[in-house]
Amino acid sequence: MTSQASTRPHDNPVTVIGLGPMGLALAGALLRNGHPTTVWNRTPGKARDIVARGARLAGSVADAVAAGPLTVVCLKDYATLYEVLDTAGGASAGRTLVNLNSGTPNEAHAAASWAAGRGVAYLDGAVMVPPPLVGDPGSVFLFSGPREVFDTHRAALTSLGDPRYLGSDPGLAVLHNAALLGLMYATMNGFLHATALVGSAGVRAAEFADLAVNRFLPTVVDATLVEQAPDLDAGHYPGELGTLHMNLNALEHITLTCEEQGVHTGQPRLMREIAAQAIEDGHGGSNYLAVFEVFRKAAPGAR
Amino acid sequence: MTSQASTRPHDNPVTVIGLGPMGLALAGALLRNGHPTTVWNRTPGKARDIVARGARLAGSVADAVAAGPLTVVCLKDYATLYEVLDTAGGASAGRTLVNLNSGTPNEAHAAASWAAGRGVAYLDGAVMVPPPLVGDPGSVFLFSGPREVFDTHRAALTSLGDPRYLGSDPGLAVLHNAALLGLMYATMNGFLHATALVGSAGVRAAEFADLAVNRFLPTVVDATLVEQAPDLDAGHYPGELGTLHMNLNALEHITLTCEEQGVHTGQPRLMREIAAQAIEDGHGGSNYLAVFEVFRKAAPGAR
Ligand SMILES: NC(=O)c1ccc[n+]([C@@H]2O[C@H](COP(=O)([O-])OP(=O)(O)OC[C@H]3O[C@@H](n4cnc5c(N)ncnc54)[C@H](OP(=O)(O)O)[C@@H]3O)[C@@H](O)[C@H]2O)c1
Ligand SMILES: NC(=O)c1ccc[n+]([C@@H]2O[C@H](COP(=O)([O-])OP(=O)(O)OC[C@H]3O[C@@H](n4cnc5c(N)ncnc54)[C@H](OP(=O)(O)O)[C@@H]3O)[C@@H](O)[C@H]2O)c1
Repeated sequence: MTSQASTRPHDNPVTVIGLGPMGLALAGALLRNGHPTTVWNRTPGKARDIVARGARLAGSVADAVAAGPLTVVCLKDYATLYEVLDTAGGASAGRTLVNLNSGTPNEAHAAASWAAGRGVAYLDGAVMVPPPLVGDPGSVFLFSGPREVFDTHRAALTSLGDPRYLGSDPGLAVLHNAALLGLMYATMNGFLHATALVGSAGVRAAEFADLAVNRFLPTVVDATLVEQAPDLDAGHYPGELGTLHMNLNALEHITLTCEEQGVHTGQPRLMREIAAQAIEDGHGGSNYLAVFEVFRKAAPGAR
Repeated sequence: MTSQASTRPHDNPVTVIGLGPMGLALAGALLRNGHPTTVWNRTPGKARDIVARGARLAGSVADAVAAGPLTVVCLKDYATLYEVLDTAGGASAGRTLVNLNSGTPNEAHAAASWAAGRGVAYLDGAVMVPPPLVGDPGSVFLFSGPREVFDTHRAALTSLGDPRYLGSDPGLAVLHNAALLGLMYATMNGFLHATALVGSAGVRAAEFADLAVNRFLPTVVDATLVEQAPDLDAGHYPGELGTLHMNLNALEHITLTCEEQGVHTGQPRLMREIAAQAIEDGHGGSNYLAVFEVFRKAAPGAR
């Protein structure tokens, strides 16, 4: 379908469509790695700095896509992808689109069909780092779709970070993205809420971050999760070192503490509810990980 | 009030009241460090193993407390503390109680008054590690209450881990405990929910844990939180690298992805709601950390 592209960056032009914070970071990394880089953005003024650093600003989406075999799209969402790319007419036929916006697996499947109908080779992807880390060799980028499309453009994608191929189902990249971002927001919210709680007694965030993030999370939380992950695959939650009953009790105390201190109670109340649900389902003597059973079997009402 | 205790463990007896998983771990660490250790538990059968390892099982709470100057209490909650210790009559007068159960700052204040009324030196505390890590020199224990009581018993408390004194307000230890445990549960729930999400496509937990916990959390999430903590103290949330609008969009995609995959949506829905609230409050162009403002100013209805 697509032939092996050159691995020499200078022979390997890339187009970037979308110059929000992430698109600008992608174009910047491509330029730093020596790729002739063409850009397009609805608001062309955002291209000023990246053009000063060597990018070429295309006058139209068709012109941008025609500049080379590979176009990386980083817009707001899938609806925007169609809106923008449909203005290119037939220019994208026979070329490759790598789409990096967030969305849902169903949307990724629909985009793959949309691309197939236009003769476009399509890879869905997700950026797992914030803009400043784009271009670092350790920065994870996830891709799913036809293996040959990934292999063809692996060299250019490696200019962005550490590209990982998840499988031919185009929905896999956004599925992993949703999971990892969900974990990110949960952890950030956990930290921000905890900081608000100790802040109610005058403790500074910078001080608390050292105890909470440098010390507590890696040794107590992260190490436990990695160690016990095989138990999740086995559905095995031994309660000898602490039961869900004990944890529900602690969640009750956390909620009451937030009430006493005048801090938001939404998170602890939801966590208490989830733990109580797991107990109701018969896991009271199990360890905390048994709440996994609640997450994976969504009650129809909870959807 | 209390004189400096010996720093030689063999001259430094300690009593442990409560032999749940945590009380057993505390007594075990004291024994390993050479303290003559007396234990008491409502259900005496749970003492069998620890007695075989050298602990003495007291016949009554009064007898247990009378065995030495320092009693560490690790029961279910404050109500249980009173229920159990009130059976000791005057035996605890002139001695020190260190209480390690979870609870709320108001409960810790009430316990300090309760102790003062009985002539008991009282320190409130919290264990920030699971039972298997008790006794490791790096395991954080938090304490609050009279500084002199902490200093007097610091040597014995060091046999349990790394004792940290937070201040004379007895509520500070449980406040920090609620904050850190809230962070722990939020992160665990984030991971378990994410694992359920990728699990819906057949990805194993052990495999996902490596990407999510070994790779993603430390570099993308934890490093960012520590780096940006001073911004929380300053109320400064610059949005150049990503706005709350972009994050709300991602939270919308996460929620929809959970619906598509049939996984629990409670967490992403709440996170979406909190982000939307921050935008409503005028932070749409700020970065994600601006949700801190929602957490620290609880709406009356949210309590
Ligand atoms: N920033 C991050 O930290 C980060 C990290 C990982 C992944 N991502 C993902 O990367 C994607 C882009 O994110 P971002 O932070 O760069 O900013 P964003 O605000 O999500 O997207 C901005 C881009 O979308 C364009 N756009 C929006 N609506 C449009 C429309 N109707 N027609 C044409 N263009 C439109 C904007 O053009 P204008 O400039 O003309 O408005 C701009 O190029 C998102 O899906 C996001 O989830 C971002
Ligand atoms: N396990 C952990 O991972 C962990 C970690 C950090 C902190 N903590 C905290 O440590 C404390 C103890 O936790 P745990 O895991 O050891 O188990 P737990 O189930 O919270 O507490 C069990 C202890 O409380 C006693 N108890 C309960 N109700 C009683 C009553 N009405 N009268 C007399 N005794 C009563 C039990 O006696 P019986 O044996 O007779 O039932 C047992 O000694 C809790 O506050 C917990 O939050 C636990």
